Amino acid sequence: MSTTLFTNCTLFAEPYGNVIRNAYLLVKGNTIAETGPMADLAFPEDAKVVDASGKLLMPGLINGHNHCAMTLFRGLADDLGLNDWLHGHIFPAEARYANPEMVYWCTRLAAAEMILSGTTCVADAYFFSGSSAQALADCGMRAVIGHGIVDFPVPSVPDPKKNIETVASFIAEWQDRHPLITPAVFAHAPYTCSPATLRKAKDLADRTNVRFFTHLAEGRQEIEMIIDPQGTSPVRHLAALDLLGQNTVCVHSIWLDDQDLDLLEESGTSVVTCPQSNLKLASGIARIEEMRRRNIVVGLGTDGCASNNSLDMFKEMDMLAKIQKVERNDATAMPAQSVLQCATTGNASLLHLPLLGRLQPGCKADLIVLDLATPHLTPFYNPDLLVYAASGADVHTVMIDGRIILENRKILSFDLQETMARIAELTQTIRQAN
Amino acid sequence: MSTTLFTNCTLFAEPYGNVIRNAYLLVKGNTIAETGPMADLAFPEDAKVVDASGKLLMPGLINGHNHCAMTLFRGLADDLGLNDWLHGHIFPAEARYANPEMVYWCTRLAAAEMILSGTTCVADAYFFSGSSAQALADCGMRAVIGHGIVDFPVPSVPDPKKNIETVASFIAEWQDRHPLITPAVFAHAPYTCSPATLRKAKDLADRTNVRFFTHLAEGRQEIEMIIDPQGTSPVRHLAALDLLGQNTVCVHSIWLDDQDLDLLEESGTSVVTCPQSNLKLASGIARIEEMRRRNIVVGLGTDGCASNNSLDMFKEMDMLAKIQKVERNDATAMPAQSVLQCATTGNASLLHLPLLGRLQPGCKADLIVLDLATPHLTPFYNPDLLVYAASGADVHTVMIDGRIILENRKILSFDLQETMARIAELTQTIRQAN
Repeated sequence: MSTTLFTNCTLFAEPYGNVIRNAYLLVKGNTIAETGPMADLAFPEDAKVVDASGKLLMPGLINGHNHCAMTLFRGLADDLGLNDWLHGHIFPAEARYANPEMVYWCTRLAAAEMILSGTTCVADAYFFSGSSAQALADCGMRAVIGHGIVDFPVPSVPDPKKNIETVASFIAEWQDRHPLITPAVFAHAPYTCSPATLRKAKDLADRTNVRFFTHLAEGRQEIEMIIDPQGTSPVRHLAALDLLGQNTVCVHSIWLDDQDLDLLEESGTSVVTCPQSNLKLASGIARIEEMRRRNIVVGLGTDGCASNNSLDMFKEMDMLAKIQKVERNDATAMPAQSVLQCATTGNASLLHLPLLGRLQPGCKADLIVLDLATPHLTPFYNPDLLVYAASGADVHTVMIDGRIILENRKILSFDLQETMARIAELTQTIRQAN
Repeated sequence: MSTTLFTNCTLFAEPYGNVIRNAYLLVKGNTIAETGPMADLAFPEDAKVVDASGKLLMPGLINGHNHCAMTLFRGLADDLGLNDWLHGHIFPAEARYANPEMVYWCTRLAAAEMILSGTTCVADAYFFSGSSAQALADCGMRAVIGHGIVDFPVPSVPDPKKNIETVASFIAEWQDRHPLITPAVFAHAPYTCSPATLRKAKDLADRTNVRFFTHLAEGRQEIEMIIDPQGTSPVRHLAALDLLGQNTVCVHSIWLDDQDLDLLEESGTSVVTCPQSNLKLASGIARIEEMRRRNIVVGLGTDGCASNNSLDMFKEMDMLAKIQKVERNDATAMPAQSVLQCATTGNASLLHLPLLGRLQPGCKADLIVLDLATPHLTPFYNPDLLVYAASGADVHTVMIDGRIILENRKILSFDLQETMARIAELTQTIRQAN
């Protein structure tokens, strides 16, 4: 069992705000074994020692919602509304270019960007999910992979009648196969899945004990787009189909009324918010501060980087804090602490991965090391700065499952240049066609 | 006269979207002499050649509003509303800690952060402005330095009766003294300056031919805080005092009605918006998309990093685009092109520095070089990505006035470690007191 000792660091400790300066953190195997002040350290034998002077150790960030392979479409269609963007540009591009190889390499590109910006675990939601799972496993990233389901033909499932069985096969193939990968079900949205499809997708998730994800209430008029609505709002549509509950994660969840919030709260349904995507597509501002006060579990995600266009969770955290404050007309809303919780323990909770998101003995050794000796993080009075001033580029070292996969901003777990070369080829094809 | 030749670069050219791949840019002295495709290049003798393969050259960003020395208070008081933040924390901290030495070193810290994130020119607004000017000149940054004016005692002007003469002395001292530094007048706000003070400040600016800056309509109820209001809104207050016009820059300008917009437009008054600060303090969202459609000159600034808390103009640009879209419920609002204009030619125009903000022959050689060979800027279909995905950390090289002051992210124009050491001392004092 390998042992790694981080020394002389500033430690992001609990409760929030409690930063231990001159601390150590000991990893045994894939687990955090000890943390504390350097004065209390008994040096273990045979440990790899990482001197983290001038650096901060914090939990690896979790990206609660991404469509990893969409890196290929980053910046292809900006400054457009959700419907024009999705139906006029993204769905056609996917129909033309999505295939297992594209998904594999573009997911690797996403992995590179995420690792370089301090994300250690991602909830992916796309098609050809075997390729996504293989890519993230090959890159050494932890991931929950939701295989997409829609009621129209897509490259991965040309016959939509087979959408449920395709996902069932993916789950059977990847469940308990790789220590970093957890399969899941991703029913795209109530306006692309019929009530029957949604119900079958949820049954599959419950039967196989995996998470059930769906986009919900992203657009203002979504209820009008829903096929055969069972209620007067997207949330009530899901409620009427008995799709809410502790196994359900609703992504976006912007256009909710008070009754919708009651339904989410009472059923223990979780929400993942993607503020940058929601702003860029002018979708709206979710009622996250109210969800927080109701104790609805809220996670944070970037969405695919064709809409955002970045996978940097530090940028996403900053946006979440600021947009909630101005929306509520209250600068005390969504304090930095709550935002950090969304990106760590909140996402860990809704992904049913409770050993992630904290630097506590017994937790998984998924952690990141930030360089604090830089002008924009000076002075460092308290960890609020991680939300309001840090960026992914401050990440110096990344450990996932006890393995160092980024060191001094060099990726160790795979060949980045090989991926960049493959992406250049794919990009060239799209450029020539546009 | 020194000559620098950038080769093999991607060039941010005009009109917007026109990126020249495999281009060159030639600088003679402090001026851009030529740009074009590599095929057209006649290699000059005695040029310093900078190979910019895999990199993009774009105009240096201009920060239209900053209180540079407030780096010392970064993160000291987060998640608080404007009044509590300003009167409960910032004004008292300034009363206690602001002095010429603090302003000098903390402005150098700001310069380091700005240079490292691609800002080549800043409009500063603070006190002890001789120290700010000296610091920025010493760091090799271009700056417009607005000396602060308020009607209550501050460390730099203990007797407010002397506030106008203090600024007059500063202008006399710095006008035409240093090629990078332009003095200006900064009347803090109509709620901290009486009508008589505002009028005298504007007269001083007009008489000495420098720019007149003021914070305006940052808070929702500002008109109620104004001393002896001359109108029914902050803008109408300024209008009644004949303070609007082409020499006036109103910072923030959030709470404006249609009549206010008419007044700004008709008078040729400029606006600088600081969206991150406005969101974090829950001040509100300015009507920037409407100003853009009216052809009001709009610039972009970070505000002081005690409120924001970052001086990264890339982050600010991203926020401006996204917040305007969601506020207008229109994803086509504030397109990337317009945002880039705010941060370059918009600011150049309102600062009366028309030779900045463009990579055209005859313009000042203030430019930045970004590394494009990185996962989060891949693919690079068009320059929208500079707004939606780039960050200050992508800046590799910075040239100001023809002089390379950052190379491979190392600051060449001053000793960063000396500054960091001085800041550590100042920070220690504040930590012990809090």
